[in-house]
Amino acid sequence: MFAVYAESFSSDEPLNGLVVGERPDPEVPDGWTTVDVKASSLNHHDLWSLRGVGLKEEALPMILGCDAAGLDEDGNEVVVHAVVRDPSYTGGDETFDPKRSLLSERYQGTFADRVAVPKANVVPKPESLSFEEAACLPTAYLTAYRMLFTQGGLKAGDKVLVQGAGGGVATALIMLARAGGLRVLATSRDEAKRSKALDLGAHEVFESGARLPMKVDAVMETVGRATWSHSIRSLRPGGTIVTSGTTSGPKLDDAELTRIFFLQLRVIGSTMGTRHELAALTNLLDATGVRPLIDRTLPMEKAQDGFAAMADGDVFGKIVFTR
Amino acid sequence: MFAVYAESFSSDEPLNGLVVGERPDPEVPDGWTTVDVKASSLNHHDLWSLRGVGLKEEALPMILGCDAAGLDEDGNEVVVHAVVRDPSYTGGDETFDPKRSLLSERYQGTFADRVAVPKANVVPKPESLSFEEAACLPTAYLTAYRMLFTQGGLKAGDKVLVQGAGGGVATALIMLARAGGLRVLATSRDEAKRSKALDLGAHEVFESGARLPMKVDAVMETVGRATWSHSIRSLRPGGTIVTSGTTSGPKLDDAELTRIFFLQLRVIGSTMGTRHELAALTNLLDATGVRPLIDRTLPMEKAQDGFAAMADGDVFGKIVFTR
Amino acid sequence: MFAVYAESFSSDEPLNGLVVGERPDPEVPDGWTTVDVKASSLNHHDLWSLRGVGLKEEALPMILGCDAAGLDEDGNEVVVHAVVRDPSYTGGDETFDPKRSLLSERYQGTFADRVAVPKANVVPKPESLSFEEAACLPTAYLTAYRMLFTQGGLKAGDKVLVQGAGGGVATALIMLARAGGLRVLATSRDEAKRSKALDLGAHEVFESGARLPMKVDAVMETVGRATWSHSIRSLRPGGTIVTSGTTSGPKLDDAELTRIFFLQLRVIGSTMGTRHELAALTNLLDATGVRPLIDRTLPMEKAQDGFAAMADGDVFGKIVFTR
Amino acid sequence: MFAVYAESFSSDEPLNGLVVGERPDPEVPDGWTTVDVKASSLNHHDLWSLRGVGLKEEALPMILGCDAAGLDEDGNEVVVHAVVRDPSYTGGDETFDPKRSLLSERYQGTFADRVAVPKANVVPKPESLSFEEAACLPTAYLTAYRMLFTQGGLKAGDKVLVQGAGGGVATALIMLARAGGLRVLATSRDEAKRSKALDLGAHEVFESGARLPMKVDAVMETVGRATWSHSIRSLRPGGTIVTSGTTSGPKLDDAELTRIFFLQLRVIGSTMGTRHELAALTNLLDATGVRPLIDRTLPMEKAQDGFAAMADGDVFGKIVFTR
Repeated sequence: MFAVYAESFSSDEPLNGLVVGERPDPEVPDGWTTVDVKASSLNHHDLWSLRGVGLKEEALPMILGCDAAGLDEDGNEVVVHAVVRDPSYTGGDETFDPKRSLLSERYQGTFADRVAVPKANVVPKPESLSFEEAACLPTAYLTAYRMLFTQGGLKAGDKVLVQGAGGGVATALIMLARAGGLRVLATSRDEAKRSKALDLGAHEVFESGARLPMKVDAVMETVGRATWSHSIRSLRPGGTIVTSGTTSGPKLDDAELTRIFFLQLRVIGSTMGTRHELAALTNLLDATGVRPLIDRTLPMEKAQDGFAAMADGDVFGKIVFTR
Repeated sequence: MFAVYAESFSSDEPLNGLVVGERPDPEVPDGWTTVDVKASSLNHHDLWSLRGVGLKEEALPMILGCDAAGLDEDGNEVVVHAVVRDPSYTGGDETFDPKRSLLSERYQGTFADRVAVPKANVVPKPESLSFEEAACLPTAYLTAYRMLFTQGGLKAGDKVLVQGAGGGVATALIMLARAGGLRVLATSRDEAKRSKALDLGAHEVFESGARLPMKVDAVMETVGRATWSHSIRSLRPGGTIVTSGTTSGPKLDDAELTRIFFLQLRVIGSTMGTRHELAALTNLLDATGVRPLIDRTLPMEKAQDGFAAMADGDVFGKIVFTR
Repeated sequence: MFAVYAESFSSDEPLNGLVVGERPDPEVPDGWTTVDVKASSLNHHDLWSLRGVGLKEEALPMILGCDAAGLDEDGNEVVVHAVVRDPSYTGGDETFDPKRSLLSERYQGTFADRVAVPKANVVPKPESLSFEEAACLPTAYLTAYRMLFTQGGLKAGDKVLVQGAGGGVATALIMLARAGGLRVLATSRDEAKRSKALDLGAHEVFESGARLPMKVDAVMETVGRATWSHSIRSLRPGGTIVTSGTTSGPKLDDAELTRIFFLQLRVIGSTMGTRHELAALTNLLDATGVRPLIDRTLPMEKAQDGFAAMADGDVFGKIVFTR
Repeated sequence: MFAVYAESFSSDEPLNGLVVGERPDPEVPDGWTTVDVKASSLNHHDLWSLRGVGLKEEALPMILGCDAAGLDEDGNEVVVHAVVRDPSYTGGDETFDPKRSLLSERYQGTFADRVAVPKANVVPKPESLSFEEAACLPTAYLTAYRMLFTQGGLKAGDKVLVQGAGGGVATALIMLARAGGLRVLATSRDEAKRSKALDLGAHEVFESGARLPMKVDAVMETVGRATWSHSIRSLRPGGTIVTSGTTSGPKLDDAELTRIFFLQLRVIGSTMGTRHELAALTNLLDATGVRPLIDRTLPMEKAQDGFAAMADGDVFGKIVFTR
């Protein structure tokens, strides 16, 4: 079948190992099913895979792609959940499985005619969402949903600060926070990004490190070192930082432990989301009319162009591949 | 000062005991403050007071009114929180204080030039809300906010059923649920009310007792006997009924205890809300642009007309008095 | 292999359908494993099965028994979790799966040389627990554990009322509540049972319906109709009733809905427990030295005697079968 | 009245400013009451006050002491809650009040014949606890109670690691964790302290930094820099560190942010406890028979000897003063 896959790794020239070609149909273990892919979307995870991060040499060739929407074996419109639990896992929340994998890490990914997934990893797609829109959800938007509403425990009327507007998860955080009735503050070093954050729905934007006019209930952290102390200082007593990444690095100058214990702050890690959260997220978009921000849509044959644009950093919103 | 108060009780002709006249300025105990009332709003509670329900003979004459917005002693625009904790109460959530009272029960109410309240019962009014709009919040909308987001634990993307569309709290429930990113289903026996529920933002409406196309995460119950079994049957396993009243009576034909334990359902009582929740509610309206539904606005001198309209049942939305 | 099974149903003479004999080895589907049974324990569920309640004619002959401890295929000492999720279930908590079954309902039970279970249904047995003790846990004690610590949310220093001391779950509730640092009050109509409740660790015992000297944080309800109003009246504002059965029937004279909403009480259904909770329960017994109460231990060949004793009601504690 | 107070500060010779003498009776503001002190206990906080940490020059002379048990104005036996909320605080949990103070910081302390406290700061003393025992609770044991059961959310059957056995809070953590049905692991650099931890009830003890035989649900952190990475590595996915101090300093070599987000760990600050938690703690001791560890009991006139012992570090358990 048609597939976009990694043939080799290169940390300097990741696109060198990218092939748009043919791969065998996926194996379908007992308890798994297949989805005919109508649309998928690109993540930085795909670029990292081509650099050999999170993917093993012996797994090559590997079809890339975590996100997809398409048709299940009965022709139903579905979204694919990218988190695959290890068969030995006995817990209830698959994101806590230390042996979990994302599609394209251990099992073949979604940039293909067809993808095989465990039966439980298929979620109904609401009619109101196009395949292109639905294909944006399983990674960036799901991560943002879990950060805000599960790990952050935020509810309508609360106040949230999103650090580092402009990033893919930050964009999703701003849009979903507005959809959930939150007051949304956002920061960026870059004026153009602050302006875009306002367009996405942020109520107020600030330069990085600026003193805020109010304390917030929670801060969404994907930046790390560059914003940590500001995040801590922006919280009300008992407030929460949800952290799901560190684009500026994880080595903090000062973890601010004294403030954490004296103000009884909470720091909560978050990564990806559950199948149940993906279903709630699709319901949220269906119920509110909010739609993921799409930078461009390309036929999957032109996947190279999408990867190149992401590598150049010249992107605001998701890059979607259609099939 | 000018005041609208109850002079006597009558269960049949409640308006007979209503006086629009003059009363002494309120006493201001240590730790209390006064608010100059700019707007207040009418609740069924006020009509019940005139019938002698929840109010004692020896407390007469009593200025009526639970809700108000106005100016504090420094001229700041504020909303008044109506729940007054007993001085002996040591808990953290004033709605759990068994000796709590609402304004106009033990302490003089808000239908007057001025009302005295504990300093903690004053919440900043966002500029974006008019005094009229803010005066609608402290009872019906606060009750709805706590039902949905505290007791119901609902978060963006969840599904909620509101029973008995048309009631004051049900109206607030539908509007606030939409503001919080929920999918909202509503029922009513009356087609006109179902139509209004759609106008308010309900996604789908149903006749009372109709089988729903999906199971919901929570049901908001203010009806009681007439809807209880339907509420139970509408829930997913582990789902929640939040109950804050029983307009059709509290005597259930069948409490459905077997379903409750086998499906692990949750029934959670709710009444009024905290000062903290009132602040979050004002923030929710400020952040989303959602505004309370106002049936009519009258100068406080014409309070009789407002009481008469409510007694006739000829009302959809809040009746606001301005001063 | 040797097995104790139901051959037919009789509501009047349930033991008539009970056979101690031979049955084929269990089938072992993909993803399942087998446990060599060293001990199992009897539940009322087994007697109900012989009456045809919860078991279908076409499932006969069915090996009975939900509870077991034994050796897994590698010779490890294990406890068996009795709740089997349906393969189509996608949620995290298997007790919310509406199509779940208990061993001996759809799949062959534990009163045999060997039982087949999903791999995830096997929990390590702590060395400090004998097979006989471990075999008491998966139904009655697991139910009690979830009621107290998950659904009831009780923590050390809280106060709990156990209604209907003497029942199997009530016995487990009293013992586990004490192990968890709770103050334990218990009721029974029967003086001998009240006395036994004190022996099990209850701090204070009362006649059914007696006014308690203090309000409690939670009531554990397995009685239903006969105790409901007393349970409601025994709670502090905001307190919780956890209900997992109704030995006196589910039809309440008065559900007490007005008290529920005005005092903001919580009614939470509970049934069985998760694999994770079974592991925590074994850890609790291992860490505290608390042990299940065993009425008698019989070789599995004498299972008839155990069933007869339970049918006579002449039991205080678990009846254990060894193999 | 008789009182033990700070007259001046000295960081090197804190005892130089300590006076055992006479001070005027405390002022009793509206809404406050007095307690006749029968016993109080010493905390490091008292020694820090004499060094001028947390206490202002202009507040001198200041009667020291946070903890007390005694008789209220009606002769009831009570324990004193040391956290005094600022009158302007409107929240529900006084430990989140940024302007809160402890007795002996802004208001006169408990080392005296009499102490004045807000009426809500008085909790009934169970008969089963002596005044000496009750006087140990309001600081170290209350801190430990909140860490374990509120901020840590630990329940019976969970596993907890206590870092730095030997400290006052760590001692309380081990004893209360056992009382609540937890499996308790503890570390110390010092063999004698590890041995004492076993005597207090720890199930297993380890050298600092040793690899544990199992992952735990939560770590109780009062050490900081020296143990942080070990605490992070000891947690199961989704596990919790509760931090309430940093005896080895707050500047972490590596905050381990990458592990925090990828394993979805939770870091929760904690400080002191609420009045409600103090009541639950007294109930826990009453219900389980667990008693605080007392190093020595001295008449309050000999308070100097107690301070000297604490300054020498020659203490294991609480130093109690009686009056």
